[in-house]
Amino acid sequence: MKIAIDAMGGDHAPEAIVKGAEQAVPEIDNLNIALVGDESKIKPYLNDHDQIDIIHTDDIITADDEPVRAVRSKKNSSLVRMAREVKENRADACISAGNTGALMSAGLFVVGRIRGIDRPALSPTLPTVDGKGFLLLDVGANVDAKAHNLVQYAIMGSIYTKKVRLVENPTVGLLNVGTEEGKGNDLTKKTYNQLKEAPVNFVGNVEARDILTGPADVVITDGFSGNIALKTIEGTAMTMFSMLKETFMSSVKTKIAAGMVKSDLKGLQSQLDYSEYGGAGLFGLAAPVIKAHGSSNSRAVFNAIKQASHMVENDVTGTIKTTVESIDWNKGD
Amino acid sequence: MKIAIDAMGGDHAPEAIVKGAEQAVPEIDNLNIALVGDESKIKPYLNDHDQIDIIHTDDIITADDEPVRAVRSKKNSSLVRMAREVKENRADACISAGNTGALMSAGLFVVGRIRGIDRPALSPTLPTVDGKGFLLLDVGANVDAKAHNLVQYAIMGSIYTKKVRLVENPTVGLLNVGTEEGKGNDLTKKTYNQLKEAPVNFVGNVEARDILTGPADVVITDGFSGNIALKTIEGTAMTMFSMLKETFMSSVKTKIAAGMVKSDLKGLQSQLDYSEYGGAGLFGLAAPVIKAHGSSNSRAVFNAIKQASHMVENDVTGTIKTTVESIDWNKGD
Repeated sequence: MKIAIDAMGGDHAPEAIVKGAEQAVPEIDNLNIALVGDESKIKPYLNDHDQIDIIHTDDIITADDEPVRAVRSKKNSSLVRMAREVKENRADACISAGNTGALMSAGLFVVGRIRGIDRPALSPTLPTVDGKGFLLLDVGANVDAKAHNLVQYAIMGSIYTKKVRLVENPTVGLLNVGTEEGKGNDLTKKTYNQLKEAPVNFVGNVEARDILTGPADVVITDGFSGNIALKTIEGTAMTMFSMLKETFMSSVKTKIAAGMVKSDLKGLQSQLDYSEYGGAGLFGLAAPVIKAHGSSNSRAVFNAIKQASHMVENDVTGTIKTTVESIDWNKGD
Repeated sequence: MKIAIDAMGGDHAPEAIVKGAEQAVPEIDNLNIALVGDESKIKPYLNDHDQIDIIHTDDIITADDEPVRAVRSKKNSSLVRMAREVKENRADACISAGNTGALMSAGLFVVGRIRGIDRPALSPTLPTVDGKGFLLLDVGANVDAKAHNLVQYAIMGSIYTKKVRLVENPTVGLLNVGTEEGKGNDLTKKTYNQLKEAPVNFVGNVEARDILTGPADVVITDGFSGNIALKTIEGTAMTMFSMLKETFMSSVKTKIAAGMVKSDLKGLQSQLDYSEYGGAGLFGLAAPVIKAHGSSNSRAVFNAIKQASHMVENDVTGTIKTTVESIDWNKGD
């Protein structure tokens, strides 16, 4: 199995990418890695490995580049070259911690979709209180979704959760403004009805208030609302940690108390750290494409590589293809 | 000025409602209150007041009642009777901590809309790190909004923020998946263009990640996304407080530390407590209608009364009416 990785994407590239790749090679059977990027910047961090090679290119897509334009014009950027490795069958999967929009564009225009899937979905696994986590999709690949798109997300999310996260018969919930049937906007009402007929374990609507308690293994939503939910979780957690820090630094007494619970609070913070679950998959593409978090350290890169290799090994893409082909889709919504 | 209050709505009714009313009467000039509900349940908590009277009815709408049906069939419920006090000009504003959907229905069908406003918006003030807070609307009155609805929210939110929260030239942000112009779904792209022409201080898109840092005085969004954002904030904060509590109870050492910072942590919690800002206004109705939080204590009820009285005194409704009438609306979106 070969995985192509954008060595120049992310806040800690290329060091964290190289180190993550080096950690993965001895841990995962039959793994080969292609690091795509500037050889002169990669080499200082890379020890000799038979299973890791470099594909040199010195062009990069930055966080500020306009995604679609960048993918079209920077054909030799590390991100686009990485996607081409997959397209041209030299790699089985690819990973980038770079520009999310550019990765989605490269996924769509270079790697290509699974036939029958109309829109791919960006799908992170989020932490829950019980440590099991859940898959949320879509968080922004498709901000104007239709009901049949969401049904496809439910199918793709269920297959991934079963095959990679090893959950038998994963539950699927629809993110909505209330739990009762009949609640919601036009989109969620239509989706609810279609999900009742879909080959997934649909358990009904779930509310945003309960999201971190893990009301379902797979929570589906349109890309706009999913993006709002994801970023609201991040923003609220970040704000609370910074307020907590301020509280602890406010007096001598609170500083002493802070010292006493420091390691416990670090544990709390890592419970909410979703890099442990790998990156966000771009489901619906012709091969596994993983978006690692922009702030990924080597551990997060290692986890994304493990995730991609599990997707390849368990043929998540092939199973999605076969399942979607077996359904008589009515896309007139 | 007379304010009608649903004495039977909310988790702590009627006691918290009665006590809140009693706190408000000496604090606010020329205030008269009508408590609507079961006299035998209200009286035990009520001292004699010239300025508080009871409108007796023993029917109630519960949290489980289907909103529209309940408002239509329970015409003598405390919530509907309260709304009728406003409709029939015996009260200038009304407040309920009961069933949110039923209050929205009673607002729409009993109190009625301002002419020219197509859809009212549910508008809570949320806390920010700097303590200033911001207005978020809509959080669920209208889950299938059009661009001109959102522009009306921007106008109503700006008027309220200027007149009641005393912010000069309040900034208006559009909740979106990115900050750059051109980001978003069909709705936010259309709304962005219309907001540039609207008589408000539009500062562009704001992201959910930054929402608690207060990126604008007024943040507008459709009712579906707004509900997701609001409930995600609530859910994340609740989850983190419960995880924090667990962390503090995990060992003798952490328990000692907890004792040392207890009061400081309470301060943190109250910083995030939005009952201090009053309830959520239902903007766009022919008179001020306030939804107090279901868990309102007497202090929260007092704040909601203060808020309603400010809205009456500063003629928020009349100003919205005049402003909306002065605009040549193109509602073809």
